[in-house]
Amino acid sequence: MDRLTEKLLARYRVEDGKGFRLRDHDPDDDGGLDRDTDGAAEMLQKGVQYLATQQDMLYAQDRWSVLCIFQAMDAAGKDSAIKHVFTGVNPQGCHVTSFKAPSATELDHDFLWRHVTALPGRGQIGIHNRSWYEEVLVVRVHRAILERQKLPPKVMTKRLFEERLEDIAAFERYLARQGVVVLKFFLHVSQEEQRRRFLKRIDEPEKNWKFSAVDVGEREHWADYMKAYQAAIRATAAPHAPWYVVPADRKWFTRLVVAAAISRALEGLGLHYPEVTPAGQKALVQAREALLG
Amino acid sequence: MDRLTEKLLARYRVEDGKGFRLRDHDPDDDGGLDRDTDGAAEMLQKGVQYLATQQDMLYAQDRWSVLCIFQAMDAAGKDSAIKHVFTGVNPQGCHVTSFKAPSATELDHDFLWRHVTALPGRGQIGIHNRSWYEEVLVVRVHRAILERQKLPPKVMTKRLFEERLEDIAAFERYLARQGVVVLKFFLHVSQEEQRRRFLKRIDEPEKNWKFSAVDVGEREHWADYMKAYQAAIRATAAPHAPWYVVPADRKWFTRLVVAAAISRALEGLGLHYPEVTPAGQKALVQAREALLG
Repeated sequence: MDRLTEKLLARYRVEDGKGFRLRDHDPDDDGGLDRDTDGAAEMLQKGVQYLATQQDMLYAQDRWSVLCIFQAMDAAGKDSAIKHVFTGVNPQGCHVTSFKAPSATELDHDFLWRHVTALPGRGQIGIHNRSWYEEVLVVRVHRAILERQKLPPKVMTKRLFEERLEDIAAFERYLARQGVVVLKFFLHVSQEEQRRRFLKRIDEPEKNWKFSAVDVGEREHWADYMKAYQAAIRATAAPHAPWYVVPADRKWFTRLVVAAAISRALEGLGLHYPEVTPAGQKALVQAREALLG
Repeated sequence: MDRLTEKLLARYRVEDGKGFRLRDHDPDDDGGLDRDTDGAAEMLQKGVQYLATQQDMLYAQDRWSVLCIFQAMDAAGKDSAIKHVFTGVNPQGCHVTSFKAPSATELDHDFLWRHVTALPGRGQIGIHNRSWYEEVLVVRVHRAILERQKLPPKVMTKRLFEERLEDIAAFERYLARQGVVVLKFFLHVSQEEQRRRFLKRIDEPEKNWKFSAVDVGEREHWADYMKAYQAAIRATAAPHAPWYVVPADRKWFTRLVVAAAISRALEGLGLHYPEVTPAGQKALVQAREALLG
């Protein structure tokens, strides 16, 4: 990875949450790049190609897994970032799970349960569109949801959300120790840009299906959501499970940052195709001879 | 729970692992009870009945789950303890999962994965016959198993087993916070009693199916296993996830202790049938009238 990209990524990566403040991050940041003159489209294409080759080795080596968590306010561009960054990656080694409101069976279990069952196996990239973080975001903002979780009153302590954050941090540390590379993306959109995108969804008929009036109502809770995001990033950012606070007011830039961050993580694994042992080499030679008859 | 039982149970319960030594526990301990004159069979029957009524309320209330983990050397009586303590409990609210050697799919995931999918839902009792503790027991004694887990070399640190214990402890704390009552039973059999039981399995034809020559080989590693058990209990015993070190040289006593320990935990939850709200009461009256025409 070139030093310029490395330097740019460092701006958005949070590996130590202490003192993290969301307001230090500008949703409209474009890293000083110009979409056209800097050739953003070609940069992204290159990034996706690199990702595809790395993923092929990840799959062949069958040791590491990669978990990419996407969190954001509505219309921040999660779906489109996933689409543009991962289209071109072999779907046999890459699986997206979108988490909606939990089912009755899911509510019958601890909150990690449904997410754990969807974790990527070795050699796989797992993309979680929303994640266990919803438990400290939407549930924190709308306490009524907590009631539906059927927790015994005894465990509903005042520190419930701090405890959840502590549990999530511990679980991600465990995952890292098991060879799961955890990457967390917060697509950071401004309230004003969200408003523009909602209006587009209403005004352009082919975008109507994306619009939900409920989402508009959530805008009233913007400040609470930002507080919850900040608390989550503070409590769970770690070198083994970094957060990327990705500027999301310009979609082309969001995608570049996401692609680069994943490439960087894969590069750090030093992936290579499995080496064949001398005994394996010999077996290959013998098989060759047998096939040639 | 009467004070005598309470006092007896306290002898076997470990809620703080600091300084725990296995050799302070006698596998042949019978708590000063006499099987016949004290009526062990009736005591067990009463215990099982109590368990059944508590479980009915647990199920109706649909808030707490109970996870009972059973760990032991071979022939310590895990299966028979499960059979005698839980026969009489409604199977709709009680599920046993026996964990054998992991499958290829299971090995493709982090080690908690297969256990998490089997966790009991709210209102349920889940019995895990062997558990995630195998990862710090058999895997610790036979390092070759670790190779099969396909971990990236980078994460195979010198502190691997300490880290696993730390991760297990953190995960059990998380479960407790989610309303899962975690109880862990180590059925503590002596090497000499195991020898006698193995001989019985060989000499009595109807017990032959239980015998495996591999199990005998494991006797050579007895000291290593005991060390691994002690380390596991030290690192993971907690008030919210206690270990019971159950004397296992006398099966009738083992069962009494296990039944009493589970009864005690359920009693502590203050279970009751869900109360009907005034609105619910009214609805019941209306339904009654409608049914009577």
